[in-house]
Amino acid sequence: MNQPVDRSVNGLIRYRLNFAYDGTNYWGFAKQKGFATVQGELVTALTTAFGESKTDFDMRVAGRTDAGVHAYDQVIHIDLSQEQLKRLGRTKGFLGKLNDLLPEDIRVHSVELAPPGFDARFSASYRRYRYRIADGEANKNPLKQRYTHWIKHPLDVTAMQLAAFELIGLHDYASFCRAKVGATTIRHVREITVKRNPADDNVIEVELQADAFCHNMVRSIVGGLIAAGEGKAGPTEIAATLARLTRVGSYKVSPARGLTLIEIGYPADDQLAEQAERARNMRTLDEN
Amino acid sequence: MNQPVDRSVNGLIRYRLNFAYDGTNYWGFAKQKGFATVQGELVTALTTAFGESKTDFDMRVAGRTDAGVHAYDQVIHIDLSQEQLKRLGRTKGFLGKLNDLLPEDIRVHSVELAPPGFDARFSASYRRYRYRIADGEANKNPLKQRYTHWIKHPLDVTAMQLAAFELIGLHDYASFCRAKVGATTIRHVREITVKRNPADDNVIEVELQADAFCHNMVRSIVGGLIAAGEGKAGPTEIAATLARLTRVGSYKVSPARGLTLIEIGYPADDQLAEQAERARNMRTLDEN
Repeated sequence: MNQPVDRSVNGLIRYRLNFAYDGTNYWGFAKQKGFATVQGELVTALTTAFGESKTDFDMRVAGRTDAGVHAYDQVIHIDLSQEQLKRLGRTKGFLGKLNDLLPEDIRVHSVELAPPGFDARFSASYRRYRYRIADGEANKNPLKQRYTHWIKHPLDVTAMQLAAFELIGLHDYASFCRAKVGATTIRHVREITVKRNPADDNVIEVELQADAFCHNMVRSIVGGLIAAGEGKAGPTEIAATLARLTRVGSYKVSPARGLTLIEIGYPADDQLAEQAERARNMRTLDEN
Repeated sequence: MNQPVDRSVNGLIRYRLNFAYDGTNYWGFAKQKGFATVQGELVTALTTAFGESKTDFDMRVAGRTDAGVHAYDQVIHIDLSQEQLKRLGRTKGFLGKLNDLLPEDIRVHSVELAPPGFDARFSASYRRYRYRIADGEANKNPLKQRYTHWIKHPLDVTAMQLAAFELIGLHDYASFCRAKVGATTIRHVREITVKRNPADDNVIEVELQADAFCHNMVRSIVGGLIAAGEGKAGPTEIAATLARLTRVGSYKVSPARGLTLIEIGYPADDQLAEQAERARNMRTLDEN
């Protein structure tokens, strides 16, 4: 006989929400007083849906994106009380209600009871991002201008990929992170691919996957790769920058508009708690 | 020995421009005093580039799109004087200058000397449009919200395609056009396909190709197909609506945001003049 599983966290029931947004009009994910943010919109819609105010549902996000960055498949969890659960009703109806309350540039795709041990942020085993560059060889498609970094001259994709190889692995990425006191900048980057996509206006797509990224890391890496593509930095210089462990003299942070969070990866359900424990020990609460 | 070809039109030299735009922020293509329009932006950029004012370069467009409609590959021609030609210089440099002067949601892809007999509008042999619908079966992707018509319930794609078959052919489309006195509403629709695209968020794509479309025709047809997809109209009713030759009781005009002009087709260079002659005889100057 199976043991009944206690899914409650401090007496609350945890739900997982998958959602997407066009970040153009937001000051990033995280709530900031007086600014339109994705979290602000979500909390407003949820409080309206539940007929409550002054709660943030202990919302936690998997990838805290910066101002102007987009998400194709982002994840949060929220913790609901028994009273809130009653008002939730059938999750399918709730999903429709929630999307009606949200602006069109934020769409929730699913609302699901979270498996035991699930934490949107700490259980995540990887984050995957895509950066889109329309260089001199690409077709300038204004229907994708909000999601594209525009560069006039052509970039050398092979030089970019060669530079990218230097940045894969388990490293201290201090040279590519905005510093935060007391927080580690060690990350495990598992993949960086640079490809021209003939099926998508011939733009250059940089895809990056890591256990996690520190603040500004993806856009700083892309800045380095663009320098490589322009012939301003070779693999040796990129490797030297990484080894320097300081941001001075590093590359430009590429613009937010080109960046989209593509996917958050989670381990199998029975490893969620263990993964969360590992991540908590590695990183402080202020990091992503 | 080849005959020298006279490319001038009334002493002016004709150029062909291919370009694209996100129509969200424009009151359509055609210039209107006091409103932001695509033509208005193009004329402003061209007059600045040529250091002139008070000319519209006898600009003519292939597909005059309505407010909020987008274009992936639109075509205009402009006629330049010998003085303007000197200021044009190398067309590649001119293209860059023009795009610098244009807002980011309009991008010119090419500026080319037009072949003899070319007329952006009258030489065109076909127009191709795509309409994008995210119904209940689709993934709601906010990164494409500006280019999508959102419908909550699922649509029956097969029913839509069956209805579409009734609208293919050489017909009088008066039931699907906004009437204009003295203008024919006879058009030759060569293709209407309705497909769900699993590679693009599972949205429904309606693609339509015709020699030309009259005003509101694509969106009225899509409105009819949506009614079919909702089970509100079968192929017989769609055919009856077409045969009625009047707009009363026809279907809703679907929203502009879902519509994108995909392609303008032209015949081989030696048939451009003949095609233009044919089109001029068939349609008045006010139609598309």
